[in-house]
Amino acid sequence: MKACAIRALALDGVAGANSGHSGMPIGMADVATVLFENHLKFDAADPDWPDRDRFVLSAGHGSMLLYALLHLTGVEDISLDQIKNFRQWGARTAGHPEYGHAKGIETTTGPLGQGIANAVGFALAEEILRARFGKKVVDHHTYVIAGDGCLMEGVSQEAISLAGRQELSKLIVLWDDNNITIDGTVDISDRTDQLARFRASGWSVHECDGHDPADIDEAITAAKKTGKPALVACKTHIALGTAAQDTPKGHGALTDPKVVADAKAAWGIDWAAYEVPADIKAQWEEIGSRGAEERDEWSTRLAGLSGAKQREFERMQAGEAPKKLSAAIKAMKRDYAESQPKMATRSASEKTLNVINPLMPENVGGSADLTGSNNTKSSDMGVHLPETRDGQYLHYGIREHGMAAAMNGLALHGGLRAYGGTFMCFADYARGAMRLSALMGVPVTYVMTHDSIGLGEDGPTHQPVEHLAMLRATPNMTVIRPADATETAEAWEIAATATGTPTVLALSRQGLPTVRTEFKTKNMVAQGAYVLAEAEGKRQAILLATGSEVSVALAARDLLQAEGIGTRVVSMPSWELFAAQDEAYRRRVLPAGPVRVAVEAGVDMGWDRWLTSERGKANKAGFVGMEGFGASAPADVLFEKFGITAQAVADKVKSLL
Amino acid sequence: MKACAIRALALDGVAGANSGHSGMPIGMADVATVLFENHLKFDAADPDWPDRDRFVLSAGHGSMLLYALLHLTGVEDISLDQIKNFRQWGARTAGHPEYGHAKGIETTTGPLGQGIANAVGFALAEEILRARFGKKVVDHHTYVIAGDGCLMEGVSQEAISLAGRQELSKLIVLWDDNNITIDGTVDISDRTDQLARFRASGWSVHECDGHDPADIDEAITAAKKTGKPALVACKTHIALGTAAQDTPKGHGALTDPKVVADAKAAWGIDWAAYEVPADIKAQWEEIGSRGAEERDEWSTRLAGLSGAKQREFERMQAGEAPKKLSAAIKAMKRDYAESQPKMATRSASEKTLNVINPLMPENVGGSADLTGSNNTKSSDMGVHLPETRDGQYLHYGIREHGMAAAMNGLALHGGLRAYGGTFMCFADYARGAMRLSALMGVPVTYVMTHDSIGLGEDGPTHQPVEHLAMLRATPNMTVIRPADATETAEAWEIAATATGTPTVLALSRQGLPTVRTEFKTKNMVAQGAYVLAEAEGKRQAILLATGSEVSVALAARDLLQAEGIGTRVVSMPSWELFAAQDEAYRRRVLPAGPVRVAVEAGVDMGWDRWLTSERGKANKAGFVGMEGFGASAPADVLFEKFGITAQAVADKVKSLL
Repeated sequence: MKACAIRALALDGVAGANSGHSGMPIGMADVATVLFENHLKFDAADPDWPDRDRFVLSAGHGSMLLYALLHLTGVEDISLDQIKNFRQWGARTAGHPEYGHAKGIETTTGPLGQGIANAVGFALAEEILRARFGKKVVDHHTYVIAGDGCLMEGVSQEAISLAGRQELSKLIVLWDDNNITIDGTVDISDRTDQLARFRASGWSVHECDGHDPADIDEAITAAKKTGKPALVACKTHIALGTAAQDTPKGHGALTDPKVVADAKAAWGIDWAAYEVPADIKAQWEEIGSRGAEERDEWSTRLAGLSGAKQREFERMQAGEAPKKLSAAIKAMKRDYAESQPKMATRSASEKTLNVINPLMPENVGGSADLTGSNNTKSSDMGVHLPETRDGQYLHYGIREHGMAAAMNGLALHGGLRAYGGTFMCFADYARGAMRLSALMGVPVTYVMTHDSIGLGEDGPTHQPVEHLAMLRATPNMTVIRPADATETAEAWEIAATATGTPTVLALSRQGLPTVRTEFKTKNMVAQGAYVLAEAEGKRQAILLATGSEVSVALAARDLLQAEGIGTRVVSMPSWELFAAQDEAYRRRVLPAGPVRVAVEAGVDMGWDRWLTSERGKANKAGFVGMEGFGASAPADVLFEKFGITAQAVADKVKSLL
Repeated sequence: MKACAIRALALDGVAGANSGHSGMPIGMADVATVLFENHLKFDAADPDWPDRDRFVLSAGHGSMLLYALLHLTGVEDISLDQIKNFRQWGARTAGHPEYGHAKGIETTTGPLGQGIANAVGFALAEEILRARFGKKVVDHHTYVIAGDGCLMEGVSQEAISLAGRQELSKLIVLWDDNNITIDGTVDISDRTDQLARFRASGWSVHECDGHDPADIDEAITAAKKTGKPALVACKTHIALGTAAQDTPKGHGALTDPKVVADAKAAWGIDWAAYEVPADIKAQWEEIGSRGAEERDEWSTRLAGLSGAKQREFERMQAGEAPKKLSAAIKAMKRDYAESQPKMATRSASEKTLNVINPLMPENVGGSADLTGSNNTKSSDMGVHLPETRDGQYLHYGIREHGMAAAMNGLALHGGLRAYGGTFMCFADYARGAMRLSALMGVPVTYVMTHDSIGLGEDGPTHQPVEHLAMLRATPNMTVIRPADATETAEAWEIAATATGTPTVLALSRQGLPTVRTEFKTKNMVAQGAYVLAEAEGKRQAILLATGSEVSVALAARDLLQAEGIGTRVVSMPSWELFAAQDEAYRRRVLPAGPVRVAVEAGVDMGWDRWLTSERGKANKAGFVGMEGFGASAPADVLFEKFGITAQAVADKVKSLL
């Protein structure tokens, strides 16, 4: 009856909310019960101890399965009231599992395929940390429940093939093989032989009757022993025992009182809604406490590490930045102020990584097959592969979406920080996972190079024009577009110390001159925008620019000042960080009065916010940038043809004066 | 030497541009030569005749392969000057193939995996049109050249599994199996057995030595006979015969004069750069003219169809809207003005489809497994499957990205129009292909339902907040968020008659009252924004709203008018369409002076543009909407908790007066 207790809670929760998904928790209750009872290393009293097994509900619509498990095993965050408030305002029990709402929710799922791809990151984190700290303190599995939808989404293929190559033998995917999707049987849109597909990427594959505990147990036991990532196809009946069993209707919310009553009768449940008989609760709580001893033993083993190792482990788990980081960044800035380098900000990013990665053993780098272009591999980093588990650089392959989702998993695991590179245009491919970085607040860093038409000849398919707008529109995402090597170092300091926000670094392909010519101790980028060059004489114009266009603005200022037009240049690497400053600072940087012209090699979406001195009140203002897609030609030709030049900026100012 | 002529042009083109990708055209020249010489139904004198075979270069970075083939076979658009101007401003020969730049470029590729996924759309189009018009006039293959990158991208899995289920036997993928990616050998990131993977999804698989013409020919010949989609793994050497053969360096631009000279010597080429000896050119031109006879025969067969069928075929090929469409939309609007229905705009969309689909046999509908939620299946539509090829509704499965890419292919094929549905939030998954719809200007329609927190309990993973901004920021994309059934009908009229722009319909889950209470002949949505309710008395405020928030604005107007504050309500379903109006109209709708408040259940990104009367000049203004992610709760609770209410709008106006 342990599984039936899950089923009853799921049915009651969904019926109470009058929305949700009854069928999956009901169908997978037996599998989840065996997993928790016999396999999962889990302590309900401390659901986030570092060496626990991770349990990822990739089929996030079946959230009541997870909530029921957490409640039944005794996780404090998920009280019976939470179950009763399923899908209601303020409840921890959201429609889909939301990371941070309760302990035991390892990641936010719902958008299909994300969980299985996160899990690759979890499993990679385990390998990397095991290589660093040893099997005595890092030795756990990552279990995933995935549905047909997860396996149809393309991101799952990226995850499966990456996991196969990395031989992530601690990763076990339990596939809810129920042959039902919303539109009908799986067969109407897919006839893939999933076992063959996983096998093709180096997985071991197993099958079981998902309602036969012994069979389930045998399959999971076998899956753990193969030395490969393992798929267990669990043949189940969606909404088992209800009137909607084995139908698309069973996928959704079963709320009809008769359907509910009949199902409970079929399962032999005679207790009231939301109740759990004491004996069954006790059985579940015993399961929930099964891991306590393992946790204690682990604590002892952790205490057995050297003091330095222990402190490092604890600092990394806590996500604390190393103390030397800030001084190292300052030293870089001092050097740049002296050498005044001209370099692409992607190269400046690499230089920064060469400094900070040796200080930050928690950093896991990578690129979606553009390592040399994204400049993401610092000289100290080794490549992570099964034969070199101590490497912390990942060749993610041509898999931007899988990379971003794995980065989320790496960060969520605890103990590590992740960054990964691609061309900024391919943020499009990674979008599904990037949004979840922001929603969950995981401090991963997206290194997005070739951030404008400055990419040149590869043409409009590779030239972002709307991507800065897209990323800036996303809540809880810090987008930084540094103007030179110094701003890049400062940007990395922000990214590397962020705690609850992902960072996007928008970096140039092309060389950029030093615009911050004087050394400043302060991290100026952290203010989002600042006065880079003051007007001489009466301040008639303010130029706002980001990244590669800051030097364009400075050159425009030269033209304007030569004509006696006092012009301030504001470098504005991050809208979000500027918006977070107090109003007094913002007004000092952008006082009312002068003409404002923004220059950025992207579309103008959103710029009006900074061209008005307050919402609805404004100065004369203009924008110099892109109006549509780019083109294929050398970068300097493109800037000229699209009119993003110092002369164009100066002309725009003069037309407004 | 025919293949070597390709190699030489590719090498010269890239060296001349000093950028590009030499290795792939060199490596695949033999395969492409066999394809063009023995298989591809192609007429260089008329490269876009309807029953040609389609050739899709999914590995778009190898663009010089395509340009060389088009030039050598005699396609007028690609002259030798175009080859010499490879990757230069204004040339048809962009860094990656750009649809519309030249006949013979079937689709824009470069972002990897798109071409193979477009090709599924091409092949589906062929099946659908064959079912309608018969094998005599529609009978052709779709050939794809795909690289390792295409196969690693997740979208390829969506394409492969969909093609397998649909048994698209006219689809042949030639895989450039060269084992090289930018970061190293494929092996560093992938060990997938691709033959097993394709086989798992129902493909027939074949292998050949990609440098042995007889072997290539045999494999392609076999692939065409299997009754399944077919993969031909062509074992090739990237940059064959150059100093960079079989290395990642060979992937990029080979520009060193010695490397170029040595390679040409190795290939036995003794002619000058960009030259093609007359005898070789003649051989290629014979290949280019091979299809002329087939085309003539096809014309004769087309003329043999009934007059009505011929006219239908020609109208659909020309992309002309049926004459009855406009009247049908007007009739719907007249009905709505009488019945004043309250309905979700997704339901209104279904009602419109029930009217227009029977008039538009060119319409191909579908959904990514959310048919009942997206309301995309009109009552007349049959499901397209191998056993029902006359069906024009596609169960795309849980594959948003693959769906969008297939829609691009359906539209690019000619003769059909495509629309497809998903939740608006999952525009994130489809982004990679949606951007290409805009860049190519294909008039597909994205039916994006559940367009705000109005989605309710499913929570923030399923609630778009930044997606309107993301889509509006994309050049050449018409985003329409209709407010009621009438605006939805008008929106569909725009989408269904668009010629060079994709349309996004942002539709509500929740019921909405009729806001356009009076019948108007004119398509008001086509103006982008219009005065829905005029101020009574002195006009002190203008409320701007879209979609489900228009009724909120109207209710706010009632509150304000009750206090004697004259308030105009502007319904603004489409920013892009409004921006395209002349300035006089825009000023009439949004005159300077009154306070402006916008209300939309999304983030404010971009709204400042409409809150200022001209850039930099403005009125007092405010915004009522979302500041961050949504939450899981019933929709009405969410609107209340996030403060998107009539009262909040009225209060905002009053605070500004």
